[in-house]
Amino acid sequence: MPQVSKKGQVMPASPIRRLVPYSDAAKARGIKVYHLNIGQPDIETPRFALEALNDYRWKVLAYTHSAGEASTRRKMTEYYKKWGIDVTEDEIILTNGGSEAIQFAFGVCLDAGDEVIIPEPFYANYNGFATESDVVVKPIMSFIHRGFALPSIEEFEKVITDKTKAIMICNPNNPTGAVYSEEELHQLAELVKKYDLFLFVDEVYREFAYDGKYVFPALNLGIDDHVIMFDSVSKRYSACGARLGMFVSKNKEVMKAAMKYAQARLCPSAFSQVFAEAAVDTPDDYFVAVKNEYLARRNCVVVGVNAIPGCFCPTPRGAFYAVARLPIDDSDAFCKWLLEEFNYNGETVMLAPATGFYSVEGMGKDEVRISYCLKVEDLQAALKCLDEALKVYPGRVHF
Amino acid sequence: MPQVSKKGQVMPASPIRRLVPYSDAAKARGIKVYHLNIGQPDIETPRFALEALNDYRWKVLAYTHSAGEASTRRKMTEYYKKWGIDVTEDEIILTNGGSEAIQFAFGVCLDAGDEVIIPEPFYANYNGFATESDVVVKPIMSFIHRGFALPSIEEFEKVITDKTKAIMICNPNNPTGAVYSEEELHQLAELVKKYDLFLFVDEVYREFAYDGKYVFPALNLGIDDHVIMFDSVSKRYSACGARLGMFVSKNKEVMKAAMKYAQARLCPSAFSQVFAEAAVDTPDDYFVAVKNEYLARRNCVVVGVNAIPGCFCPTPRGAFYAVARLPIDDSDAFCKWLLEEFNYNGETVMLAPATGFYSVEGMGKDEVRISYCLKVEDLQAALKCLDEALKVYPGRVHF
Repeated sequence: MPQVSKKGQVMPASPIRRLVPYSDAAKARGIKVYHLNIGQPDIETPRFALEALNDYRWKVLAYTHSAGEASTRRKMTEYYKKWGIDVTEDEIILTNGGSEAIQFAFGVCLDAGDEVIIPEPFYANYNGFATESDVVVKPIMSFIHRGFALPSIEEFEKVITDKTKAIMICNPNNPTGAVYSEEELHQLAELVKKYDLFLFVDEVYREFAYDGKYVFPALNLGIDDHVIMFDSVSKRYSACGARLGMFVSKNKEVMKAAMKYAQARLCPSAFSQVFAEAAVDTPDDYFVAVKNEYLARRNCVVVGVNAIPGCFCPTPRGAFYAVARLPIDDSDAFCKWLLEEFNYNGETVMLAPATGFYSVEGMGKDEVRISYCLKVEDLQAALKCLDEALKVYPGRVHF
Repeated sequence: MPQVSKKGQVMPASPIRRLVPYSDAAKARGIKVYHLNIGQPDIETPRFALEALNDYRWKVLAYTHSAGEASTRRKMTEYYKKWGIDVTEDEIILTNGGSEAIQFAFGVCLDAGDEVIIPEPFYANYNGFATESDVVVKPIMSFIHRGFALPSIEEFEKVITDKTKAIMICNPNNPTGAVYSEEELHQLAELVKKYDLFLFVDEVYREFAYDGKYVFPALNLGIDDHVIMFDSVSKRYSACGARLGMFVSKNKEVMKAAMKYAQARLCPSAFSQVFAEAAVDTPDDYFVAVKNEYLARRNCVVVGVNAIPGCFCPTPRGAFYAVARLPIDDSDAFCKWLLEEFNYNGETVMLAPATGFYSVEGMGKDEVRISYCLKVEDLQAALKCLDEALKVYPGRVHF
């Protein structure tokens, strides 16, 4: 029997999805499972944007332009203008989700063995995309007691080698909820100029910043040739199933190479482009309501987790995730135990072990990622389960 | 300024799409361009399948299962049953077009530097996907005077090394239209067993076989652990814009590794899955009519091209492409000249230079790929342009 590649073997399984068989089994036993493990919002998708598909009369559902329809890209430039980001349609390639935008960047900017520096914990699938491209992730640590602030420029410099081609950040950050300041970003800009690196910035949570924070656009840093920005309609319009992302850069050589990647796979879904083009007209009050809802949920989680003895959860300033430290021996074991062995009045909670968000072995063993995509009463019920679970978990430790 | 990767530089541009700026310019000058360069059918997409999206009432357009919705995959098993292919829903992963299925296979089965043997000419984007994955394509020649028949097993064996991990074929073949016989496929099956290789088979043109030919399913070769089959709704339902493909294998280790690839990019478009699930119920008479239409077009092209002095076009038995030999010095120069310098009564024809379908430098310089996706009267007008063009082309050669 022929063997799968080494790459196929070491490719990491999703830490967010790998516990799914245990939650399925719990549900089969009649247990109600609160899903705090996955960033799937329960917010309604703007209906008029879904209905744009009803109005669309294809005779032939043809290939679109490989970069996406010009009309859709033009509409995206309007969206960016609202955020003070000045891009042209030629600086945008529409992709199969934000995921493919990252895959393009890894391919276009890094060869096998080249290195990308990423502050950790980071979005777990970055590891997967790196494995696919034989790219090496060099993690540098951000710390829970500092609210997962961006590591200092010195920390970045320490790990730069002649193999380093890029620095990658997610702002607002999944999984930590950190929002980086304009000043921090300008320091990063100086650094990438000094070492002639690319700066990859994942801004898919742009809309979700709280407490007066503002997501300073990486494309406005004045380092046009260095920046590739990743974006997506998934979280913005609660439309994860659309799988429509954007690869945005003002570097012409990068765009030229990325277009070859885009042409090879022909085009993104024509349906998804129609949806996304319509969705740009979502009225501002939709976002006001959604943001207020997430703010209430965030506060519920932060207050609730910190009220549980032995737990600590810094306040996330953006996105809809928090990383919390729990008094546990092993987050993988704990999250599995919650599904397999525990219930409180027939209910339990599913969390994502933070280990999957670190690439350094052993990190995140006392941390979990909590996604606050559920409504407040469900979050409260879920936190009650967590509280009760920690009272009886055999692997509880005392700090 | 940071430089794009070597990979990004050597990534081939699409031979099908790279002449587009010249056709755009020709159109801007008022020239009518017949597009025989691209496999974009003009056949209408089954309307009821498009309308399935109107009936679908999402509240939240959520992520689907990473392998695609179970209901959609189950529906695909019904489709395969009609073709005598017995697969379960767990043996299918839905992908972003057939393209992504190929990307998965290259990643899951081959490491950087590993080799895949492909008879050439072959679908140009195979080269792109190989570059993305640092996989090495080892071409073996199929010849126009033999109707692009599958090379002999001895030819395959000659290029097998300890780096060879897979053999890849497209059946029916894009660009040649060859359909491989059951006997040829069984010989290949013996070969992959002998050397313990994977057999990748791209069957996206399954519906399009003429002259009583039948596309013998690779999954029925009795070498379950070796076969990965690529499929797509694009050509079958004239739905290229749906970008929904399938990665199908009975090798459990392959499916396990491919699921990690699928999970990393979360899921394919939910819209496209709804379309594809509905499209499986397309009535048989749709295909009868479509096939008859393509058959008439094929005959028009084969007869027409062979009637032009100095031209030779073997009869394609499947798909909707033909590779023809023309009395020209350089197919790239000729195809560009057709758009830039030639017109016949204000009309010209766009062809795909065959050079892009070979990986051996210099091959295909006197060949073009003709896609017969246009209706017969347009094909006739296009062939008239070709005939007139060859009378005056400065680079005409005499065989």
